[in-house]
Amino acid sequence: MPSAAATPADPEPAAVPAPSGTVYLVGAGPGDPDLLTLRAHRLLQSCDALVYDALIPEELLALVPQDCERHFVGKRRGHHSVPQASTNAVLVELARRRRCIVRLKGGDPFLFGRGAEEAAHLVARGIRVEVVPGITAGIAAPAYAGIPVTHRRAGSCVTFVTGHEEIDKGRAAVDWGGLARSGGSLVIYMGLHNLARISAELLAAGLAPDTPAAVIQQGTVRGQRQLLAPLLELASRVEQEGFGSPAIVVIGAVVAQRVPACAPQPAAVTLPIPF
Amino acid sequence: MPSAAATPADPEPAAVPAPSGTVYLVGAGPGDPDLLTLRAHRLLQSCDALVYDALIPEELLALVPQDCERHFVGKRRGHHSVPQASTNAVLVELARRRRCIVRLKGGDPFLFGRGAEEAAHLVARGIRVEVVPGITAGIAAPAYAGIPVTHRRAGSCVTFVTGHEEIDKGRAAVDWGGLARSGGSLVIYMGLHNLARISAELLAAGLAPDTPAAVIQQGTVRGQRQLLAPLLELASRVEQEGFGSPAIVVIGAVVAQRVPACAPQPAAVTLPIPF
Repeated sequence: MPSAAATPADPEPAAVPAPSGTVYLVGAGPGDPDLLTLRAHRLLQSCDALVYDALIPEELLALVPQDCERHFVGKRRGHHSVPQASTNAVLVELARRRRCIVRLKGGDPFLFGRGAEEAAHLVARGIRVEVVPGITAGIAAPAYAGIPVTHRRAGSCVTFVTGHEEIDKGRAAVDWGGLARSGGSLVIYMGLHNLARISAELLAAGLAPDTPAAVIQQGTVRGQRQLLAPLLELASRVEQEGFGSPAIVVIGAVVAQRVPACAPQPAAVTLPIPF
Repeated sequence: MPSAAATPADPEPAAVPAPSGTVYLVGAGPGDPDLLTLRAHRLLQSCDALVYDALIPEELLALVPQDCERHFVGKRRGHHSVPQASTNAVLVELARRRRCIVRLKGGDPFLFGRGAEEAAHLVARGIRVEVVPGITAGIAAPAYAGIPVTHRRAGSCVTFVTGHEEIDKGRAAVDWGGLARSGGSLVIYMGLHNLARISAELLAAGLAPDTPAAVIQQGTVRGQRQLLAPLLELASRVEQEGFGSPAIVVIGAVVAQRVPACAPQPAAVTLPIPF
């Protein structure tokens, strides 16, 4: 059989070692290293492989031991340089030859982090996985501008929603009109790119033009800045003042309840700007 | 002036020392001490006054120095043993004679924590205040049951809402029908007491009877247990199986995307049960 001779023989099943490592899906928090959990901190200091996203400050990556193997798998909007399938493959491969693999994600792994998809992929292949919650930017970035996401004088709920849903799913999946009528606060992740359209949909659904709103760019880290504006003017102010990603948008009466004096100092660390 | 002689003289304004302490509004996270942030951990280890709520495990309180002054100001449903005004007064008084006051709250101070109300009260009195975000139970308790709060195959947003709004505000302020139509996940804090009524409103608004739902009691700590049921049966199952507070309710397709194998082991600490 010439074709068999021309290609390398398939490895025997026994030649692939059974996975022996554990993959920890770790939330890195919003950027300020002080907001890392004790568990995340300990895992970073003891892992022998690190697989990380964009939006992680170098100071956090520097916590890993010197001989820890590092893999960058960050996605960039518009350029899916490392598709999910490839990230999954990296994790599966590492689980075969490493003991403690930290899969570090900005924020929380189970809130817009695709953590459950990675976990399901790994568990189906017999790999031990454990999730480690982290502080999400949707709560922390507003806090670092003194803005609470709920307040007794400002509605009864808060909705976290992503602003670039369409890019990921290829369809308009967010019912912005329904969210406008919820009466609660809206916290939008990755919302700058579509902000003019999102604002228009919220206004068309009946949200008042003077609804207080805010954008926090680079929340919790060096370069943090914020902008406050009524919803009607938000998108144009963002453009005029040159705000960019990463940013969190907050819309609702909570913005008027802010207490700027209680906002912590942003950390002196730099977020790599992904786009 | 006999009346002036009969009452003690008002203290001279100068007799009341100006506030010199800083009040840190610190999120304690959901219970597992490993989910404490580095910043919260450091503040607990160095504070000279601690003002804390219910739902904080003794193991966290034990982190403070031995000579730290401790005040319990926990609220209990139905018995507002320590009203907000009295908590505010305790904090103002401590700020006059202590250096570093930790106001420790379960979860995150700015998500159903009334942190912004306390901050505004203190800032208005010239007291230095700083918020320290914490991991909210609405994300962590589901994670400790393997349930993500968002998933690409399960809607585009997640709403965090409190289930005992009426008790606090004296009115029905939550638009459950609107939330039913949001298409995203619902995470309900303190929702067990009103669960039958909340479920009925969600069903009446069109949420499918077989919508996956879960209750996680004592999430992240000793005694954690969870229940999975279609929405239609959720309230009766909760009653049959004797579930109690503290508990987080999750409703939506995310529950079907759970990966139980990735759930961390609950911590071997005990939450004081407030009611």
